[in-house]
Amino acid sequence: MTSLASPESTPTAALVIIGNEILSGRTQDSNAQVLAQRLGALGIPLREIRVVPDDQAAIVAAVNTLRARETYVFTTGGIGPTHDDITAASIAAAFDRPLIRHPEAVRIMTAHYGDALNGARLKMAETPEGATLIDNPVSAAPGFRVENVFVLAGVPAIMRAMFESLASDLTGGPPILSRAVTAAVREGQVAASLAAIQARWPQVDIGSYPWARGGALGTTLVARGTDRAVLEAVVTDLVAMIEDLGYAATILESGAA
Amino acid sequence: MTSLASPESTPTAALVIIGNEILSGRTQDSNAQVLAQRLGALGIPLREIRVVPDDQAAIVAAVNTLRARETYVFTTGGIGPTHDDITAASIAAAFDRPLIRHPEAVRIMTAHYGDALNGARLKMAETPEGATLIDNPVSAAPGFRVENVFVLAGVPAIMRAMFESLASDLTGGPPILSRAVTAAVREGQVAASLAAIQARWPQVDIGSYPWARGGALGTTLVARGTDRAVLEAVVTDLVAMIEDLGYAATILESGAA
Repeated sequence: MTSLASPESTPTAALVIIGNEILSGRTQDSNAQVLAQRLGALGIPLREIRVVPDDQAAIVAAVNTLRARETYVFTTGGIGPTHDDITAASIAAAFDRPLIRHPEAVRIMTAHYGDALNGARLKMAETPEGATLIDNPVSAAPGFRVENVFVLAGVPAIMRAMFESLASDLTGGPPILSRAVTAAVREGQVAASLAAIQARWPQVDIGSYPWARGGALGTTLVARGTDRAVLEAVVTDLVAMIEDLGYAATILESGAA
Repeated sequence: MTSLASPESTPTAALVIIGNEILSGRTQDSNAQVLAQRLGALGIPLREIRVVPDDQAAIVAAVNTLRARETYVFTTGGIGPTHDDITAASIAAAFDRPLIRHPEAVRIMTAHYGDALNGARLKMAETPEGATLIDNPVSAAPGFRVENVFVLAGVPAIMRAMFESLASDLTGGPPILSRAVTAAVREGQVAASLAAIQARWPQVDIGSYPWARGGALGTTLVARGTDRAVLEAVVTDLVAMIEDLGYAATILESGAA
C-alpha cells in the first residue's frame, strides 16, 4: 500500500546510508529507524532507503536518482577526516559543483581544534560550493545541505543532533499516526476479512505482521494514516473481525509512528 | 573503497528489503546484517541494500536494476497470505512471467495445513512460472528462486533457515576476512598515515570508525580482504602507526566478516 504518499502534495523522503561497514555486516545500522520515526512524526513518509558502499559512482547514482524523485534526501556516513570519507566530494560530483573549503566551516573547525587542526581535519570543512551548513552540537564538524539533499554524520548521536538542527527547515504534511491490534490468530485466518477492511479504508495503510513468542503464534495488524478518527474506525473493524473469529484482541498503541 | 568487488570474476550480491514496517520505523531490520555476514563468509560481497515499500512498481524497479548488475539478488518480506504481501506477484511482473500456483508448493501447503488450507494460505503457493522452490523448515510456506533472484521470508528465523537451504546453490569467491585494530586515538590524528597505508595495500579495504565510550574517544580501523597474510601485514602497519603516535593499539579480531 502506498496510499500515504500518494497525494501529489505530500512531502516524501529517501535515505542514502553510505558505508562499507553496513554492507559487510560489521555494523548494524540504527539511523534508518530513528529517521523514519522522526520523519513520520513530521508528516514526511520515508519512501526508500539505500545502503551503498564508500564508492563515488554508487553514491552519485543513488543521490541523483532519489533527489529527483523525493522531496528530501538524507545521507548518513562518510563525512569524517579519513580516506574512506568521500561523501562531500561525492555530493559535489552529484550536483556538478566544485568542492570548496566552506569559510564558516573552517571558522568552526579552527575554533574547535585550535592547534590540533590539521589537513585531515580541515577536510571536514569541505562542502560543495553553495552548501548551507548543518549544526553539529556534539563534535563541531558540520553537516551540510545542497538543495533538497541533507548530508549527516553516521555516528548515531551526531546524526540525531544534526537532524534536530535541521528539522525546523523541513516542510511536512500531517503527522502519520498509527494504531496496532494484536491477537493470537494466524495471518491465514484473517487474510480475507482483512483485505475487505483494507478495501473499505483506502486512505489507511494496513500492514499484517506474524509473530511467534514462546511457542505461541499470532498476528499484529498495524493501521497507519493521518486521520485519527478514521484510524479509530479501522481499529473497531479490526477488533470486530478478530472477535468474530473467536479470539481476544489487544489494542497496542496510539500515537505518531 | 570498492577493491573487494572490483575483479570481474568476484560474485556480488544485492538485497531488496520489502516492507512498509521498516520505512515507517516501526520495525528494526535485522536481516540485512545476517545476510551480509553470511554472504561475506561465502565470498559474495553485498554491494547494495534497498528498502522499498509494499508497492509493485517500486519492487519491480529495484529488482530489475539490481539483478542486471549483481550476481545474486535476495529479497526479504512480503510472501505471507495477507493483502500487503505482494512480493510473488511483483517478482512475476519483474520477469514478465505469469504468476501460477506452483504444484509442489500446493502439495507442501496441503500437507502442512490440511483442512485449514484456505484461499489466503494457497496464495503462499503462488510463484512466477518456472520458479524453483526454497525450503522453509520453520513454517512450510516456501521461498522461491527465479534466475538469480532469491525470494525469502521477512521473519528473521524463517529468513535464516531459507538462506541455509539455498546457500549450497551459490557460487562464492574466497571468503572475505577481517582484522580490526582499536586505540584511543582520534581519526583526525591518524588520517594522513592511514591514507598512506591504504595506498600501500590497495587489495585491502581499510575502514576507519570513530567511537565514544564513557567520555573516552577513539578509533577502530577495520581491514577487510581475502588474503590472510596480507591482512596480517596491514595489521602490523596499523599497530606501528598507532604506537608511533604514542598510543596503545588493541587487535580486536580475526575471522570471516
